[in-house]
Amino acid sequence: MRLRAFLPAALIVCALAALPFCLHPVRVAHAAPAGAPAYAANGDLLPPNYREFIYLTTGIDMSYNPKATGGGESMFDNVFVNPEAYHSFVATGTWPDKTVLVLEGRVARTRGSINTRGHFQSEQLMGGFEVHVKDEARFPGKWAFFDFDKADKNGTLIPSGAPCYSCHAQHAAVDTTFVQFYPTLLPIARAKHTLSEEFAREDSAGGK
Amino acid sequence: MRLRAFLPAALIVCALAALPFCLHPVRVAHAAPAGAPAYAANGDLLPPNYREFIYLTTGIDMSYNPKATGGGESMFDNVFVNPEAYHSFVATGTWPDKTVLVLEGRVARTRGSINTRGHFQSEQLMGGFEVHVKDEARFPGKWAFFDFDKADKNGTLIPSGAPCYSCHAQHAAVDTTFVQFYPTLLPIARAKHTLSEEFAREDSAGGK
Repeated sequence: MRLRAFLPAALIVCALAALPFCLHPVRVAHAAPAGAPAYAANGDLLPPNYREFIYLTTGIDMSYNPKATGGGESMFDNVFVNPEAYHSFVATGTWPDKTVLVLEGRVARTRGSINTRGHFQSEQLMGGFEVHVKDEARFPGKWAFFDFDKADKNGTLIPSGAPCYSCHAQHAAVDTTFVQFYPTLLPIARAKHTLSEEFAREDSAGGK
Repeated sequence: MRLRAFLPAALIVCALAALPFCLHPVRVAHAAPAGAPAYAANGDLLPPNYREFIYLTTGIDMSYNPKATGGGESMFDNVFVNPEAYHSFVATGTWPDKTVLVLEGRVARTRGSINTRGHFQSEQLMGGFEVHVKDEARFPGKWAFFDFDKADKNGTLIPSGAPCYSCHAQHAAVDTTFVQFYPTLLPIARAKHTLSEEFAREDSAGGK
């Protein structure tokens, strides 16, 4: 799962760091081919058709700060991955080259139709969506994050010094991704012994 | 979205009503072919491979009773549909024959790994999953509900007199399904004028 779900403050740093890319004049959107990442000439990522990807999980108002308020409005995070990468993970317990993980934020609502309690997902995206892509030949660290502020615009690269990269490297369970929050993939990684050393210790200590 | 997300009390009625089916001796599980519904000789529904279906939405602790507590533990509901039906809905705004909608309940957790707030989905299913299937030649009302108490067992038919049927008929936005809670499909149904009269009135009055 992507940083924003956990680290709202750090994300602001990411967003600010990405700002020069947002102002780049070449932002032509194209439909990306199903699955593998595709790029514009300026290095932007084309928007993936992620609502037809494989679904991994949803969180709500997640944060590593127990006092975080999220600004008053509740938000769901939905995570998707391209089908080719999903099938490879099921077979191997880790991600292949050309993996495309997408985190979509949606405003949570309570009152609507016959519902009066809990939360459901609204039509309104919260802050667009973000992509974590593995492209070994393209990125020195194999993975990169891209920020999409609208569904029909290309995504801008978040620079490798942003805190999302170090947080994922330090705390994510498998290959810098938060598989500890993907309920159908975590048991596969456990069985195939692909968990990071840090998370494997936590998992065997009952943190699962 | 299926009844349980909204009507915990009514679901108990459904579950009790389905009990004779649960005790039926013929409960051999088979992997269903991708997409279309498939049945055992006794009429049970074979378990669909729904985690590779198209994702529609997630709710948490939804209920039409504002004082409902859900028994103390929070629960996510994830909704999936077979890809063939999804693509047909995108084109037409309603569901074709052989639609298979799946509602999966998962226990929500708060503390785990670096997360200390909000909720994420655990590995633990809550009460298995349920399926709403459209099979016009098979069911007098075109649609039927099936209850799966385990992922690798066949599903048992919920009798047509159960309150889930009447609730869906009365309150669901499109063709007895709760499209009002599927954020990417609701605008399609609105544009294609396939909303029920009751929900269309509510929607145009600002209930969306």
